[in-house]
Amino acid sequence: MRRLPPDYYIAGIRSGDRLVLSRAITLVESQLESDQDLALEILKQVLPETGHSIRVGITGVPGVGKSTFIEAFGKHLTALGKKVAVLAIDPTSQRSHGSILGDKTRMETLSTDPLAYIRPSPSGGSLGGVANKTRETMLLCEAAGFEIILIETVGVGQSETLVHGMVDFFLLLMLAGAGDELQGLKRGIMELADAIAITKADGDNAAAADRARIDYQNALHLFPPTTSNWILPVLTCSALQNRGIPELWQIITDHQNRLTHSGHRDQNRQQQNLNWLYSTIRQQLESRFYQQPGMPERLTELEEAVRKGELLPLQAARQLLDLPPTP
Amino acid sequence: MRRLPPDYYIAGIRSGDRLVLSRAITLVESQLESDQDLALEILKQVLPETGHSIRVGITGVPGVGKSTFIEAFGKHLTALGKKVAVLAIDPTSQRSHGSILGDKTRMETLSTDPLAYIRPSPSGGSLGGVANKTRETMLLCEAAGFEIILIETVGVGQSETLVHGMVDFFLLLMLAGAGDELQGLKRGIMELADAIAITKADGDNAAAADRARIDYQNALHLFPPTTSNWILPVLTCSALQNRGIPELWQIITDHQNRLTHSGHRDQNRQQQNLNWLYSTIRQQLESRFYQQPGMPERLTELEEAVRKGELLPLQAARQLLDLPPTP
Repeated sequence: MRRLPPDYYIAGIRSGDRLVLSRAITLVESQLESDQDLALEILKQVLPETGHSIRVGITGVPGVGKSTFIEAFGKHLTALGKKVAVLAIDPTSQRSHGSILGDKTRMETLSTDPLAYIRPSPSGGSLGGVANKTRETMLLCEAAGFEIILIETVGVGQSETLVHGMVDFFLLLMLAGAGDELQGLKRGIMELADAIAITKADGDNAAAADRARIDYQNALHLFPPTTSNWILPVLTCSALQNRGIPELWQIITDHQNRLTHSGHRDQNRQQQNLNWLYSTIRQQLESRFYQQPGMPERLTELEEAVRKGELLPLQAARQLLDLPPTP
Repeated sequence: MRRLPPDYYIAGIRSGDRLVLSRAITLVESQLESDQDLALEILKQVLPETGHSIRVGITGVPGVGKSTFIEAFGKHLTALGKKVAVLAIDPTSQRSHGSILGDKTRMETLSTDPLAYIRPSPSGGSLGGVANKTRETMLLCEAAGFEIILIETVGVGQSETLVHGMVDFFLLLMLAGAGDELQGLKRGIMELADAIAITKADGDNAAAADRARIDYQNALHLFPPTTSNWILPVLTCSALQNRGIPELWQIITDHQNRLTHSGHRDQNRQQQNLNWLYSTIRQQLESRFYQQPGMPERLTELEEAVRKGELLPLQAARQLLDLPPTP
């Protein structure tokens, strides 16, 4: 793809041109240094126009119905006249170069909605790197006038912690019947949530979903409250019957108003920005370190000795750290 | 304190001499490079004699009765003829140079028990550094023949995650009546626990403790299971009446047997060692980076710009990373 001067992208983004927005995101996602410099220049220029959206993270194990839910939720928002961008952080896309949002047959209705913009997960690189690209993409979408950013992820690894670190509201989707579907869910994730929605609460499943809702409501008062003393709501929803979707949007706006008035929203975002700074530094330091010539071989060897208990981790670390720096 | 040749410490530790053990731990905790080299030499030599203990982390908010519980639990173990070491990671000791175990009037009975060894939290340095010293201290205690290592921490910050990363069993102490005492508890910590014990289940509080136990038991089946499919037990205990203490020890030994037979214990410890390696490298890289001349001033300035939204975290990181390396 031919590169154009920064002003082309900046003007296009400001006018809400989604073709230009997509091109700018491609720069953000590019591995080329010249593209990254261009992306940074664009981001710098549009920075004052960012931050005005409601940022919502959505997670849940595969099979919980995330796409169906997001499609229904997104349609509800665009019907209210809101501009909605749907992004994703999918750790599996690193391996398969596929993506949770890559399948174009998913979210068919939403993807053709003029008020919606859907972008698959960036692929390649470390999970931290992928998350950074999603953050930058979020800023570009905000500058392009999107009012609500939904960031989808799979609740089974590290990615949901990263998403939690870049949103105002974190929604956990769950299935009724606490059984097999809990197996893959990451421990600790429940306590990151700002709301839990039990999906597929329709037909034969409606009664079970309602029981699950009551069970979780009873359980959650036993768990530590959030810093802002938000009482975690649990609700059921059905994407098929469009039930629970308006209620959930109400909860999110209530939460946002509450956080904005108490000052927690800005405080939270400032802290997220600082964490972003520290984690970028950490990622850079580590990637420089681990990419030194000969390092992968030495690391493998020392990891083996550590694993067998022949070498203290501290000794192994010292040996690796004394390697001469990259020339 | 005069330093002696490594063999003095190694022989003393092997013979279970607690004065020598204490001196070796002092080397581990020292900030002097020569002391650290000596400590590493000792650790290297005794490494084959480590790893044979049951490592138990114990956490809970201030006021839950950790010391009283640990004293009762420790006495129960020494009465069974077991050698018990009690260590601590206390993040507050970084500021006050005090320590959760520093108050010698606490654990009065246990501290004079010939089968018990109590060592306060190391103080000073980063939390990660403090945790590393506790890890090394644990190894020295194992080499000195201690069969059970209890590591105490306060469940309000990052320290309990670090403790969780160095033990076989993680015990969360809770008070009855899910109210104020939950306020300080870190979110997510509940889902790290291998058991929950409701303390102070005696006198007027016994009935409330029992209700809390049932509530937690009902709640916890809604939460994701551990990798080894361990069903999290919830029990009540009273240090005053010595109730629940033998049952808890039974739970810990059952857990240990189960983990040992399934291979999860070794797998878990290998992974902990690898994580220790990676985190030592990360700490070193970060401390070298942040200790460069002029860095604190530049960092403060850029943090301010990031906080105000004038600068992208990515830009700030780039500016800091381009600093010339330490001469």
